[in-house]
Amino acid sequence: MAITVVGSVAFDSIETPAGRRERCLGGAATYFSLAASYFTDVRVIAVVGEDFGADEEAVFQARGIDTRGIERAAGKSFFWEGSYLDNLNEAKTHATELNVFGSFAPKIPEAYGDSQFLFLANIDPVLQRRVREAMPQARLVAGDTMNYWIKDHRAALLEVLKGLDILLINDTEARMLAGNNNLLQAAHAVLTMGPRMLVVKHGEYGATLFHGSAANVKSGERTFRAPALPLEEVVDPTGAGDSFAGGFFGYLASQAELTPGAFRRAMFYGSVMGSFAVQRFGTERLQQLSRDEIDHRFTLFRELTHLD
Amino acid sequence: MAITVVGSVAFDSIETPAGRRERCLGGAATYFSLAASYFTDVRVIAVVGEDFGADEEAVFQARGIDTRGIERAAGKSFFWEGSYLDNLNEAKTHATELNVFGSFAPKIPEAYGDSQFLFLANIDPVLQRRVREAMPQARLVAGDTMNYWIKDHRAALLEVLKGLDILLINDTEARMLAGNNNLLQAAHAVLTMGPRMLVVKHGEYGATLFHGSAANVKSGERTFRAPALPLEEVVDPTGAGDSFAGGFFGYLASQAELTPGAFRRAMFYGSVMGSFAVQRFGTERLQQLSRDEIDHRFTLFRELTHLD
Repeated sequence: MAITVVGSVAFDSIETPAGRRERCLGGAATYFSLAASYFTDVRVIAVVGEDFGADEEAVFQARGIDTRGIERAAGKSFFWEGSYLDNLNEAKTHATELNVFGSFAPKIPEAYGDSQFLFLANIDPVLQRRVREAMPQARLVAGDTMNYWIKDHRAALLEVLKGLDILLINDTEARMLAGNNNLLQAAHAVLTMGPRMLVVKHGEYGATLFHGSAANVKSGERTFRAPALPLEEVVDPTGAGDSFAGGFFGYLASQAELTPGAFRRAMFYGSVMGSFAVQRFGTERLQQLSRDEIDHRFTLFRELTHLD
Repeated sequence: MAITVVGSVAFDSIETPAGRRERCLGGAATYFSLAASYFTDVRVIAVVGEDFGADEEAVFQARGIDTRGIERAAGKSFFWEGSYLDNLNEAKTHATELNVFGSFAPKIPEAYGDSQFLFLANIDPVLQRRVREAMPQARLVAGDTMNYWIKDHRAALLEVLKGLDILLINDTEARMLAGNNNLLQAAHAVLTMGPRMLVVKHGEYGATLFHGSAANVKSGERTFRAPALPLEEVVDPTGAGDSFAGGFFGYLASQAELTPGAFRRAMFYGSVMGSFAVQRFGTERLQQLSRDEIDHRFTLFRELTHLD
């Protein structure tokens, strides 16, 4: 099943203990779609500026990603500059230039209209809602958000949550959204806001899938924790969460039936894609994987966590 | 197989968001031995003061723990006062009174001499080494330490590490000991210091078992990550790490053969005992468990992490 993703396609300048890269291709929709492209067809909705050229377009084309929904606007693309020098778990932002993204009005190509899977990456919740409403045929809708929207655009965000099947956020965001420091209590609170499922990403400690309805637990839908892989070197943490989301949602979209087991395996594939993303700068590693490499790492995750 | 544990038996005054308790029975050897007592025979080496009375003794007796190695000295027992008001993951220490513990000289009862399992809880590495050397028959030796010994008593600690099979420490301690912020690199560095295995405890995110020799990996001894259980309420985090160690080492001591699978199950039992410990103040929950409750929770941990 094809996924449509709406979000940022951007340029990032990144500094980590492993080095520095200027203006790599980045953005949540980029990481998400590259990661998901190993599992299913992906269609992107975004806006870019005149600095988005043939080289950037080629990255999407090489993975068979549909870019007809990437609008070209006059001006420059969204730009972010950040560093992870003190702490690989937390980016320090040096510059954020919205550029053409500041007036983004998502346009959905007609050809995307049959997408049954929809991912609303981290953008203004007003836009997330607009896209969700314009794609009523989507039967599984997942989304991400961030501290800025949680704090300053809460009402709009709560409207989006009502229309989500799955929300993917990190620990800090879950605690902030719920106003509760206990992760399990926070998860239960978030699950009353609309989503049927909540994935909380714990960075280097993996991620946890929580289910909303107590009734569901009886059908085998249980809380599930996927680990992250201990890595010898984290080159660049940028995009790890979006790559997790791409692996998770991409795998789900590739399944004929969304069984509880499919959701657990999707958590593993999310962790797998996140672990690849951080091993090179930007999207480098995600551009040149094979399904064999992905499945080999899935096996490592199984061995890391399974008793037998 | 019987375990001998050397460490602190103490009184703790604890404040958490759930309330306050004055002078509960505490200390690393107490938490460790209660947790381990559900799996095997446990013998304690410690020193207490005149404030350690029949009620405290009864806690050990009720679990069949051998207290002949708990020396009664003139004065008061070790006392710690701390709170976890801002952050359940980090204790704020308000008072530490070593009292009789300040001149602790471990005396090993002759009856402990056949203990094949030895646990050196977090005490002065000079004493850890002395006990280890006095018990040459021990065939599996594990130990704990803390930031104070890592920073200010490094030479003595490094001597202890040479005689350890398994070191159990938390993330911060592992990074500090290795002088390396990458967890996997830090683990590899610590494993060159002596221990064959390293258990790094991640608090609410579980724990990871690392193996020292690359050769061992071939025999199926692989890195293994056990989760922690997401809990609705953490009443008191005191002793969680010592309870983890007790469950982990207690289970190992109960096994006829120390297979790779036994170590993985031991990691789960460690997490299980840690999860019980934090659900009540002090040692309350650890005093009154059943093996059925323990094994039921083990099953929950399996369901939390296993794909099938």
